Amino acid sequence: MFNAMNKNRMQKLTELMGKKGLSQILVSDPSSVFYLTGRRVEPGERMVVLLVRENGDCTLFANRLFALSGTVDVPLVEYDDTDDCVKILADALDAGKIGIDKTWPSQFTIRLMEARSDIRPVLGSAPVDEARLCKDPEEIRRMKASSALNDRTLQGVIQKLFSGMSETEGADLYSREAVANGASGNSFAPLVCFGENCADPHHSSVSSRKLSAGDSVILDVGLLLEDYCSDMTRTVFIGKPTDEQKKVYDIVKAANAAGRAAVRPGVPLKDVDRAARKVIEDAGYGPYFIHRTGHGIGLDVHEFPDVSATSEAVCLPGMCFSVEPGIYLPGRFGVRIEDLVTVTENGAETMNALPRELLSLDIG
Amino acid sequence: MFNAMNKNRMQKLTELMGKKGLSQILVSDPSSVFYLTGRRVEPGERMVVLLVRENGDCTLFANRLFALSGTVDVPLVEYDDTDDCVKILADALDAGKIGIDKTWPSQFTIRLMEARSDIRPVLGSAPVDEARLCKDPEEIRRMKASSALNDRTLQGVIQKLFSGMSETEGADLYSREAVANGASGNSFAPLVCFGENCADPHHSSVSSRKLSAGDSVILDVGLLLEDYCSDMTRTVFIGKPTDEQKKVYDIVKAANAAGRAAVRPGVPLKDVDRAARKVIEDAGYGPYFIHRTGHGIGLDVHEFPDVSATSEAVCLPGMCFSVEPGIYLPGRFGVRIEDLVTVTENGAETMNALPRELLSLDIG
Repeated sequence: MFNAMNKNRMQKLTELMGKKGLSQILVSDPSSVFYLTGRRVEPGERMVVLLVRENGDCTLFANRLFALSGTVDVPLVEYDDTDDCVKILADALDAGKIGIDKTWPSQFTIRLMEARSDIRPVLGSAPVDEARLCKDPEEIRRMKASSALNDRTLQGVIQKLFSGMSETEGADLYSREAVANGASGNSFAPLVCFGENCADPHHSSVSSRKLSAGDSVILDVGLLLEDYCSDMTRTVFIGKPTDEQKKVYDIVKAANAAGRAAVRPGVPLKDVDRAARKVIEDAGYGPYFIHRTGHGIGLDVHEFPDVSATSEAVCLPGMCFSVEPGIYLPGRFGVRIEDLVTVTENGAETMNALPRELLSLDIG
Repeated sequence: MFNAMNKNRMQKLTELMGKKGLSQILVSDPSSVFYLTGRRVEPGERMVVLLVRENGDCTLFANRLFALSGTVDVPLVEYDDTDDCVKILADALDAGKIGIDKTWPSQFTIRLMEARSDIRPVLGSAPVDEARLCKDPEEIRRMKASSALNDRTLQGVIQKLFSGMSETEGADLYSREAVANGASGNSFAPLVCFGENCADPHHSSVSSRKLSAGDSVILDVGLLLEDYCSDMTRTVFIGKPTDEQKKVYDIVKAANAAGRAAVRPGVPLKDVDRAARKVIEDAGYGPYFIHRTGHGIGLDVHEFPDVSATSEAVCLPGMCFSVEPGIYLPGRFGVRIEDLVTVTENGAETMNALPRELLSLDIG
């Protein structure tokens, strides 16, 4: 139901709309609709959209199939598959500029323009993205609970690694343990990589590669708890690591610590990226850290903003994002260590507690 | 590489563009780009789009990150994250009408209009959807191979069901067996439902519901092989089914057979829906068959067109779609039997061979 908490969110949103000169926007991102109404719908090919006006009036337009009547405390306009839903929406709009969510399928924007030549679609996601940026205390509580469960689940999975298991088996094991521990699901497809596959940060875990002595193991995993996402990475070694593996691990661990230590209100996110990246560059591995340092997280596993060299965002209390430096040596091995942090009034708090000390497993 | 087969596809596409009065379209759907260029890219937030002109000229616009250079036989325009990719694309367009893929994120369409006030976006998916509708012989070969492997994988999974297993374990088992059998992955998240959960056709398999005697079991599964999707459903019973379970099963089996028997060139898809639905309605279970009879399938698990009462499409040789009637008795049990068919020159061929006889398992 549309409760007091969500009214605060709506107020934050309409203030941001005013600052950006948007008097009406269409919110279609399922997590954003959930954020504002308390109801999540995955519309597939159908149309579910929340019209928000700067004065705080809002109306939810939804296909009757989603059975939202009586479950939301905002005016609801329902339609059937046989109705022209875009025409119904178009009739409710004011003339002039209308903000559109960046990912809304173009078919709706195009049909809206055909129905109303007096409206002008502009990009309209920024007010919602910025409203979702700083989490409120209840959201922070859930983010911490999600990460605590992720810590516990990943620890259990690491204890169950065995010689000869495949990457797919490792990923399935995490998924099963997460649900058994009370998660409502994964926040993304778990990534479990062995040996040379660790050197490809976009490697997927649909692989029969078998675990064996000498491998590095990257486990990049997250779950959903009370609608909020966790996301963490640990790297462990099977058997005694080589001197080079140890060296690379220590550099990444120091980069992860430096990135997290840089976080406090007022610090640009590009400086957080710099702090982590500098450790790796100074050690001579700069060319092998081939991605951004992190990303915002909350209802979605990837949210605004990036933690990257080009980010224009600045740390504000309540923001949650990942710090996940890595070093990838093509064809050989890779190391990544990722934690979620939240910005506090005076500094930052790391939401993951699973140790980062080098772990070598004797799995026979 | 861009081979002779794909040149035929481009020719089919440009003919359809002409029929629909579209002189330029932007193809963004990843499967459609793959269909025309032989390369599949999942662009995420980035832009990858193929500009096709009615005269057959085409240009692929892609972020350099996707490393397409040298892998496609079409002119390629690459850009970096720091470039204004939409401006680069806009400069290449002709003035006037431009067809846009229905799912292209609105941010690109809006930025395109801001860069070029002399272009007019219209819906432009139809020519590509229709080009992909009728599969060529090589595509049919792959569709059959994918369904044959799906038959074999599902048969193996049914033999491994055990008392006390959870729905999640059943779904994970299918995923593992599919990859072990040579699939490159699932074509959708496998759906394994027990007992009362079978009565919800949209039930997901993230469930700890345990399998026990008296349950119906719906297994709705598909895999990817050589880029093509399979999708099938079988329903089995744990222990001796009740008279009502047997009766419902026989009705659904007859509806599945009637739907498949109706398929031949020239028959409207709404008549295929009718043929299956009539069997269920005549038996008095009409209100419990609460979804369309099927959907097109190919590179994507759901493709144009629907097999439904409102479909305007007509069977043509080379079309591939599912026939999947079901009966769902809320809170109790459900039965669905799904096969893929392909339309031939004179009739139709069912691509699944796994028996549809009632199967009751004694799993102790």
